[in-house]
Amino acid sequence: MGERDWISRYFAPLASSPGAEALRDDVAELSMPEGPVIATVDALVEGVHFFPDDPLETVARKLVRANVSDIIAKGARPLEALLTLGWPGDRPEEDLARFAVAFGDELASWGIRLIGGDTTASPHGLFLSLTLTGQCGPGGAIRRSGVKESDLLWVTGEIGAACLGYRALQSGRVDDPYVASYREPQLAPLAITGLLRDCATGSMDVSDGLLGDARMLAEASGLSVAVDLGAVPYAGIVSRLEERLALASWGDDYQVLFAAPESATPRILDYAEARAMKVTRIGSFASGAGLAAFMDGARVNLPETLGFEHG
Amino acid sequence: MGERDWISRYFAPLASSPGAEALRDDVAELSMPEGPVIATVDALVEGVHFFPDDPLETVARKLVRANVSDIIAKGARPLEALLTLGWPGDRPEEDLARFAVAFGDELASWGIRLIGGDTTASPHGLFLSLTLTGQCGPGGAIRRSGVKESDLLWVTGEIGAACLGYRALQSGRVDDPYVASYREPQLAPLAITGLLRDCATGSMDVSDGLLGDARMLAEASGLSVAVDLGAVPYAGIVSRLEERLALASWGDDYQVLFAAPESATPRILDYAEARAMKVTRIGSFASGAGLAAFMDGARVNLPETLGFEHG
Repeated sequence: MGERDWISRYFAPLASSPGAEALRDDVAELSMPEGPVIATVDALVEGVHFFPDDPLETVARKLVRANVSDIIAKGARPLEALLTLGWPGDRPEEDLARFAVAFGDELASWGIRLIGGDTTASPHGLFLSLTLTGQCGPGGAIRRSGVKESDLLWVTGEIGAACLGYRALQSGRVDDPYVASYREPQLAPLAITGLLRDCATGSMDVSDGLLGDARMLAEASGLSVAVDLGAVPYAGIVSRLEERLALASWGDDYQVLFAAPESATPRILDYAEARAMKVTRIGSFASGAGLAAFMDGARVNLPETLGFEHG
Repeated sequence: MGERDWISRYFAPLASSPGAEALRDDVAELSMPEGPVIATVDALVEGVHFFPDDPLETVARKLVRANVSDIIAKGARPLEALLTLGWPGDRPEEDLARFAVAFGDELASWGIRLIGGDTTASPHGLFLSLTLTGQCGPGGAIRRSGVKESDLLWVTGEIGAACLGYRALQSGRVDDPYVASYREPQLAPLAITGLLRDCATGSMDVSDGLLGDARMLAEASGLSVAVDLGAVPYAGIVSRLEERLALASWGDDYQVLFAAPESATPRILDYAEARAMKVTRIGSFASGAGLAAFMDGARVNLPETLGFEHG
């Protein structure tokens, strides 16, 4: 089956907005809403970001969510997407159909419109890249660099579920409940953007490990950060310090890490409670530079390399 | 070397616009100029779109030009880019440096700003995808679908140079002058956009073979098209009909194929002459459907499959 057939059969039905011209033209027209528009791109590679035998439905959802995570962490609403699909010749068409259905459903669940893309052969393994735009609030994207001294550090959801799922898959425990968290990250709900627009002075998504990402947030703002490992909302029951450090240094959490002034605390807690959204205070910023981690009030020695990097 | 080091060393220097935040944030802010903005994405895969031993400078330029070709064919000016780079572990860092320099120079030559991207490992072979935006004229993007009955068909530059270069590489003639055209397509100059905005009723880039693309342009406009193979501006000296058909059915020309009313002919010829730009009339549209090719006034039998598709 050729590229044009693939597109018309599996992806054109997903591209229903007028600017997309049902993927029949060379380009798509971006919508130009009120307020700034941001863009991000994230790739998933077979053997690097997912296992060759991971179900393609979960790969599709992970691809979308990895990008959505970047957009919502900036207080923006996901808008329009362009897909690059490098498809291996030995994958059956049935796999493509399954991918496309899950991809379309996931886009729809976030209100994202597919407006363009490129499909090509891939000699070895599946390669996916998604470009996603997002509509910011009137104040623009919430950057990493706006954090103020004495702001508090917050994180959504739970940390470490993807790591536990990865370990389970590596040791053949495919029925482990955390496998789903590795394959399909559970993001903060879209409503987090309202809270971020209201309160956050700086934010980012946690994709390379909580501790390393906290350090980057502080660094971008010219500050130091202290993280209380006892306060981090770990997935599962975690008691040993080594395990706390390991889960806070792995990646793929796709939660939102944000800073807010102490005065915003009641607002944050009320907002989260009203929406059954999990938001936890895990640290604070100060002048200076670098990252310090604490457990039961005592400073913890950190491993030299912090922050997981794919690749 | 980790992803962040790569980005800061090789790509951050290319990202000088304010919205890009020197690639230090998770997202980039798209500029919102006057008039509609369009977007396209094109991928290049080692072993599919380029040879493993092609110089990385030419791969970088081909990546940019494959995307620029789509944008300028719509009468739009290239604007901002996001790069996905799947890098094989066995390629030395020196290759990355060479890629980045050529990539930056090529972007700059079109006035394109790099605003974001993603770098990742690739277990087998280099995988590149570029998302490119473009600023349209006040009339918006020139679509494929606006061609009118009795409009004439025009093409820029020459057809078949990439095919000749590909054949030369396959038979080991690396010094053949057309190898450069395969590795680095020669696009129409940016000034073509002024002509298209003035005169074109429909346009697209020729990337999948002249004849197949002409048929698609006609189809998108609900018309038939007749192409005069004797008028096509072939690269080199082409006399045999079989060779004319072969070169007009291969791909990678990256020229602009456009339709304009007959009344625009003097304007088109003057505009092209004033800018030393090659533009050739090669056919015409009529009611009905389908493609007919002629040579010396006689209709030519066409091969069943027309239009080259990568993959």
